[in-house]
Amino acid sequence: MKKIRLSILGATGSIGRSAASVAQAFPDLFEVVALAAGTNVGLLSDLVSRFRPGFVSVKTDAERALLIKSLKGLGLGKLPEVGVGEEGLRTAATLPEADQVLSAVSGALGLLPTFAALAAGKKVALANKESLVIGGGLLGPNDRELISPVDSEHSAVFQALGGSLDASRIRRLVLTASGGPFRGYDAERLKTVTYEEALSHPNWSMGPKITIDSATLLNKGFEVIEAHHLFRLPYDSISVVVHPQSVIHSLVEYPDGSMIAQLGPTDMRLAIAYALTNPTRLPLLDNKGLAGYAPFPFDKSLSFEEPDRKVFRALALAEAAGRRGGSAPAILNAAGEVAVSAFLAKRIPFHAITDVLEDCLGKIPVVPIKSLEDALAADKDARGYAEARIPKYQNR
Amino acid sequence: MKKIRLSILGATGSIGRSAASVAQAFPDLFEVVALAAGTNVGLLSDLVSRFRPGFVSVKTDAERALLIKSLKGLGLGKLPEVGVGEEGLRTAATLPEADQVLSAVSGALGLLPTFAALAAGKKVALANKESLVIGGGLLGPNDRELISPVDSEHSAVFQALGGSLDASRIRRLVLTASGGPFRGYDAERLKTVTYEEALSHPNWSMGPKITIDSATLLNKGFEVIEAHHLFRLPYDSISVVVHPQSVIHSLVEYPDGSMIAQLGPTDMRLAIAYALTNPTRLPLLDNKGLAGYAPFPFDKSLSFEEPDRKVFRALALAEAAGRRGGSAPAILNAAGEVAVSAFLAKRIPFHAITDVLEDCLGKIPVVPIKSLEDALAADKDARGYAEARIPKYQNR
Repeated sequence: MKKIRLSILGATGSIGRSAASVAQAFPDLFEVVALAAGTNVGLLSDLVSRFRPGFVSVKTDAERALLIKSLKGLGLGKLPEVGVGEEGLRTAATLPEADQVLSAVSGALGLLPTFAALAAGKKVALANKESLVIGGGLLGPNDRELISPVDSEHSAVFQALGGSLDASRIRRLVLTASGGPFRGYDAERLKTVTYEEALSHPNWSMGPKITIDSATLLNKGFEVIEAHHLFRLPYDSISVVVHPQSVIHSLVEYPDGSMIAQLGPTDMRLAIAYALTNPTRLPLLDNKGLAGYAPFPFDKSLSFEEPDRKVFRALALAEAAGRRGGSAPAILNAAGEVAVSAFLAKRIPFHAITDVLEDCLGKIPVVPIKSLEDALAADKDARGYAEARIPKYQNR
Repeated sequence: MKKIRLSILGATGSIGRSAASVAQAFPDLFEVVALAAGTNVGLLSDLVSRFRPGFVSVKTDAERALLIKSLKGLGLGKLPEVGVGEEGLRTAATLPEADQVLSAVSGALGLLPTFAALAAGKKVALANKESLVIGGGLLGPNDRELISPVDSEHSAVFQALGGSLDASRIRRLVLTASGGPFRGYDAERLKTVTYEEALSHPNWSMGPKITIDSATLLNKGFEVIEAHHLFRLPYDSISVVVHPQSVIHSLVEYPDGSMIAQLGPTDMRLAIAYALTNPTRLPLLDNKGLAGYAPFPFDKSLSFEEPDRKVFRALALAEAAGRRGGSAPAILNAAGEVAVSAFLAKRIPFHAITDVLEDCLGKIPVVPIKSLEDALAADKDARGYAEARIPKYQNR
């Protein structure tokens, strides 16, 4: 296999760190040419010393100064070029030296660099689902040919389709959901959950935003919207099924009644590696212990149930926002980012997150999205509205 | 899709009838040009009146006379040509008018027509697993390109591989087994099972021979040997896992820990149709109720366990015969055909079937198989030995 020159956007996040671990395990296969992060200068400095990329980006000039100081302290010799902010992200996304870009920043921040990478003709391993939630309608036909999904569910479908996004022959796509830590709860009990409980996902180790979104099922709703754009399927052909063991990561159903499913460990390195190297599969089993890997036959039974959209209203809200289209998914996403931040800052309780989503979707007018500028404007407006509403939910 | 001109060998058996049902449901897609059966003249006559093939074959001249009389009575006009015995089967397998041959006769009888069809360059939908159990070592590289498996497990693997027999990238193949009606029994309890119990498969409706082979797990052993030849995998890379619900029909595991599985109803029309029309999938769900079809999410849990090779020794005997190679699988198959016939004739009890297998494999010398003639000779010798041994097992 030809060496992959990789740019990692969101290098110090959960996905970025897993990608770094894959790249380090297969040094003959990967050359990390760019790393973009936010404020975690310590880890970024460590990654730079391991991979020696030519370009690095951080959030602000303050982190830039800290990073350069740290790298000089390590005595690395020639320092990488260090960019800053949105411009730094864009540079990392479009670097001429990069063949592939792993888009793994969290939130709407990923929109511009993802589309910039696509516009530059880069193959994009896409972990930033917000790019598609907000901007999926802006994808051109050539863009889809450049994308490999990293989300475990979309990777599962991509694998079930033989490493393709062409779902034109399928009858239905089924996204599986663990159900999160509060599966089986009713609305009343959901009001009693603690901060720590919400941050404890039963099967996956992930960043805090997506962990909370998994607990509300908002994340699964985002995945429905993402799947709609990625696989060009109508919403009626996308189902969500709760599967608490997280062994089957998703499946496709054909018109003959046959289903093809992808199963496997709950370790994001698998989906990341497949997105980067498909159709080649790396010998991860030989190389590394994989989280959640259990050789078949599993000692646990696999069970399935319908999600409870009355209790986990965020899923129903997201599906409705997807069907409505226009700026509705952008409003949903912005409201979600604001509400989860407020929850993580202990400003609002867990159950109020969904109230904020409902409030924003009910009040903010939905407008068409015809450009990235439209998407960003919708995001900004919704964010402002949501921020202003947070105090309303503090004592509930 | 181009119309498929189909020859069905074993037209009145369980697979043949299912194939006829598929062909009848999609008359624009299938033209049945030949039908070969044994002694069920009544059903064959009915099939001839439905499909009006140009060639038909039966077991002996007696059935030939009966069939012609029956067809004349139906007033069909021009009668088909009617062949007899092995020569009739061969003619049906190599008919110039046929594009595809469904090889679905039961037992070693399928060996010659299957290889004749392959030699004639026909695409072969292979349900007769004995062709590969006995003659798998004689397949040339071009032959494999012509074969589409019909067995539900091998069809599952074929589907998981995207409609290909190329398993060179996989780490392991896992064949699932329902475990049959006697799953969980110990050796003592197996001695008490009745004729009717052995003929009642929990999940699949099949012919009597394969139903009994499923109850002993000999059928799963045959499938291991079949998979070895079909997918060119070493025996160490083929596992058997008991999965009582028969929802996952088999799966492949890749070196990255990912597994691709095929799931679906327990209706052979699915595997038959896929073998004939792949990569196209017929809208069987819209057209026909499928046996065992349950839309996802399933209301049952899926469970898995290791097969008990100490109680179901036929599986272990078959795996050992496969590894030994040469004529060992032919001996196993012949002994199995004789023993199951004796059981179906109520000459020996259920548990003695496996004793007969063990006896034959222990006593009959294993020789190399270098030609179809070698295979047939090994089959004949083993059959003779087994027949002679049957009386020994009558009162046990």
